[in-house]
Amino acid sequence: MNALDHLIEALRRLPGVGQKSAQRMAYHLLQHDRAGADALARALQEAARHVRHCERCHTFSETALCKICQDTKRDARLLCVVESPADQAAMERTASYHGYYFVLQGRLSPLDGISTREIGVAPLLERATDGQVEEVILATSFTAEGEATAHVLAEALKARGLRSTRLARGVPVGSELEYVDLGTIAHALVDRRPS
Amino acid sequence: MNALDHLIEALRRLPGVGQKSAQRMAYHLLQHDRAGADALARALQEAARHVRHCERCHTFSETALCKICQDTKRDARLLCVVESPADQAAMERTASYHGYYFVLQGRLSPLDGISTREIGVAPLLERATDGQVEEVILATSFTAEGEATAHVLAEALKARGLRSTRLARGVPVGSELEYVDLGTIAHALVDRRPS
Ligand SMILES: [Zn+2]
Ligand SMILES: [Zn+2]
Repeated sequence: MNALDHLIEALRRLPGVGQKSAQRMAYHLLQHDRAGADALARALQEAARHVRHCERCHTFSETALCKICQDTKRDARLLCVVESPADQAAMERTASYHGYYFVLQGRLSPLDGISTREIGVAPLLERATDGQVEEVILATSFTAEGEATAHVLAEALKARGLRSTRLARGVPVGSELEYVDLGTIAHALVDRRPS
Repeated sequence: MNALDHLIEALRRLPGVGQKSAQRMAYHLLQHDRAGADALARALQEAARHVRHCERCHTFSETALCKICQDTKRDARLLCVVESPADQAAMERTASYHGYYFVLQGRLSPLDGISTREIGVAPLLERATDGQVEEVILATSFTAEGEATAHVLAEALKARGLRSTRLARGVPVGSELEYVDLGTIAHALVDRRPS
């Protein structure tokens, strides 16, 4: 395989990129934007080198503790559980939440072999039982898998004497949090209910 | 700006990738496919290092002459002019053409300051007047700019005593060759007409 085909193959690993788009991207970079190709290569290497996970909430961070976990002005009684850094970013953009976060590595999917261990339930339970957290807001997706994840987490938290809530069903069923408009998320946060 | 934001910004330079997709791609690579990020970085650097343009037809090539220009079994009397390597690849996939190619650097666009010099008309005229080429098939896009480019080329070729033809109008007007189905391109090739 030649360098051009290698590049097309590598671009195809990006989410949402098929053969046709990958070819178009490769041709564009080589024909019109070699500086862009170079910038992207370096950005990928820098990100892979520097971006790690926050020790406390597991979101992306270039420091041991992320900016939010470092912020002592937040409400330590609230812990919001999301499936991904993208969902956390969507939640932050609503500017309606002032507690801390815990970012799971996705959601439970038994058919794909993704169990409580893969998504990091144990670290969440450890984080939630720090003695300060009083309410865990389960903001996993409103898909079948997201709901199942919330259910499992609610049971585990309950067994440890912790109260959990779920975002209100203002979030459209079947959708992923990342793509929901901010007003809807903000509303669903206010209307959160016991899970 | 941190490494994650840099990566998102670099991904946005890819054609068809907006802020939301760039963020999704960056998160996906960092969360689920760091090997993919590494592979892509290396593929970009390898491609930028090795992929050059064929000295004769100007398509992408990792050797001085591309595979098609090296192929002595093709019909040297036919020269097909396309706007990009992607269009050339589409033409090749029809398996209906057995001559050689010349790949322009895009098409004329006076409003964007893209003139005959930018797209490489002079090297095309030099290539077409090698004494062997008898017919130049103008396979530029059937957009206003592609048609204008074909017109300018036809005039220049005529002034040098060369016959040029245009792909038949089987190609849907307003569309770019790269996205046309192969049967339509094949048909339009058979029905090519004097330009
Ligand atoms: Zn954190
Ligand atoms: Zn060539």
